[in-house]
Amino acid sequence: MSIQSEQSAVTVLGLGPMGRALAGAFLDAGLRTTIWNRTPGRDRALVGRGARSAPSAEEAVAASGLIVVCVVNYDASDAILRRTAVTDALKGRTVVNLTADTPHRARDTADWAAGHGIRYLDGAIMTPTPTIGTSEAVFIHSGPQSVYQEHRPVLEALGGTHTHLGQEIGRAAAYDIALLDIFWTAMAGYVHALAVARAEGVTARELAPFAQGIGAILPPIFEEAAKDVESGTFSGEGNPLTSAVSSMAHIIHTSEAHGIDSGVMRAAEGMARRAIGLGHGADGFSRVAEMLGRN
Amino acid sequence: MSIQSEQSAVTVLGLGPMGRALAGAFLDAGLRTTIWNRTPGRDRALVGRGARSAPSAEEAVAASGLIVVCVVNYDASDAILRRTAVTDALKGRTVVNLTADTPHRARDTADWAAGHGIRYLDGAIMTPTPTIGTSEAVFIHSGPQSVYQEHRPVLEALGGTHTHLGQEIGRAAAYDIALLDIFWTAMAGYVHALAVARAEGVTARELAPFAQGIGAILPPIFEEAAKDVESGTFSGEGNPLTSAVSSMAHIIHTSEAHGIDSGVMRAAEGMARRAIGLGHGADGFSRVAEMLGRN
Repeated sequence: MSIQSEQSAVTVLGLGPMGRALAGAFLDAGLRTTIWNRTPGRDRALVGRGARSAPSAEEAVAASGLIVVCVVNYDASDAILRRTAVTDALKGRTVVNLTADTPHRARDTADWAAGHGIRYLDGAIMTPTPTIGTSEAVFIHSGPQSVYQEHRPVLEALGGTHTHLGQEIGRAAAYDIALLDIFWTAMAGYVHALAVARAEGVTARELAPFAQGIGAILPPIFEEAAKDVESGTFSGEGNPLTSAVSSMAHIIHTSEAHGIDSGVMRAAEGMARRAIGLGHGADGFSRVAEMLGRN
Repeated sequence: MSIQSEQSAVTVLGLGPMGRALAGAFLDAGLRTTIWNRTPGRDRALVGRGARSAPSAEEAVAASGLIVVCVVNYDASDAILRRTAVTDALKGRTVVNLTADTPHRARDTADWAAGHGIRYLDGAIMTPTPTIGTSEAVFIHSGPQSVYQEHRPVLEALGGTHTHLGQEIGRAAAYDIALLDIFWTAMAGYVHALAVARAEGVTARELAPFAQGIGAILPPIFEEAAKDVESGTFSGEGNPLTSAVSSMAHIIHTSEAHGIDSGVMRAAEGMARRAIGLGHGADGFSRVAEMLGRN
């Protein structure tokens, strides 16, 4: 079988929860889907739905022109892709690596791919597993435009929106890092808030509707702060850094009075107090972004 | 003038941005509004709109049956309310303290109020200044139900939704602390993400629509985590703690490679790794809430 005839076929390497969701969406779209996982036994449900389970990574690679990789990190994807038999099988094919890691690792992988005649796109999945195959899914991609355009129809079988962020291969990972930074920091605040609320006799169920209200006010505030950073103005009108640290101190005091560690908020307060120490107390919290970026 | 005849009148103590917004909403609702601020000169625009500016806090208090206080913290509100002349003037009147502070300070103020024949409600404002007087505003209150019901019509002139969370006076502050914990931690993550993105050549404007997408996925994830904490099950199906710390490590690595402090994320990763160390690596991030609450 020529690589040309394999254009409607796709291989998924990595069958963790996200890899399985990706393979399932390809199957639902009627694509010939080949799967492989380092640890055996995760392929059964997918095989029942029509997937072909390959006995080795090199055989999985040889089955399709497009290889989608989704494993825990680039140490794991390197361990799969950079074995000689697999690297040889990849020649002339396209790898779309949806594994999350740093922009540096994406650039390093692009260099390796170029050195072995492998076409390479880097991508990231910005929404949870259950969104895959639905309109809710959000994918970002970076790398050569022509390679992206060629494989776009197959990638769109994964559902949702796909955005090509540019030719620079590290760009999808850069967005991914920044967005995960927001997500995991917010989650750290949320689980801490649940613990403090519980210590005060407020249940998670009672707090939940108000917590969702906080989630709802964040997008417009994010938008305002982005404008501040773009324009280099950091108006604290209505909410200066001096007010923010007052709130933060209350949170820390209340948490620690209940014996609840508040290291995350202590670090956040430290950033804000550093900006105040630099003379920015009347500015809004967006000033901290500018301060962190000074080198 | 008897206190009875002052029921359609309201006094606002504190004319920071939020205090001015509150007084403006009372004026818009046609209430006789008396205002006072420790630092003079902040009353001009409100006087132009019909507010009466009192020359002292005690005279401001004497003008209305309902006194709304909104200053920087309870140190500031104590400094106003606990002066003998003001305390004497407050006797038989109702104080609604919308100043943000800890549940402990609210309880302490309730004890003081009870000892001086002052009726007291504690409250918190969960939305930014521009929402005041609009349907977007969110207010929470706690304290005696009968006092709340009596003043509810005047408080509702502030717009938005008002929720009485219970008789226990510290409850509004407890919700406030927990919700500000979510808000400020998320903001700390966001400004950090803007700095990291910029170092990677991604502008705030480019990141903004995706950042808003992260804001949009938080409410249902908050809901799931609240259910986990309520039920004591912490399924990591789809996103175990071991994956979370992998993402966190990528964020820290990328930030620090650009010389950007990542103390907040280091503290968040520390919490997650502590939960993994306690044997919860296969659990979801909600497990951290349970771990933090152990004493």
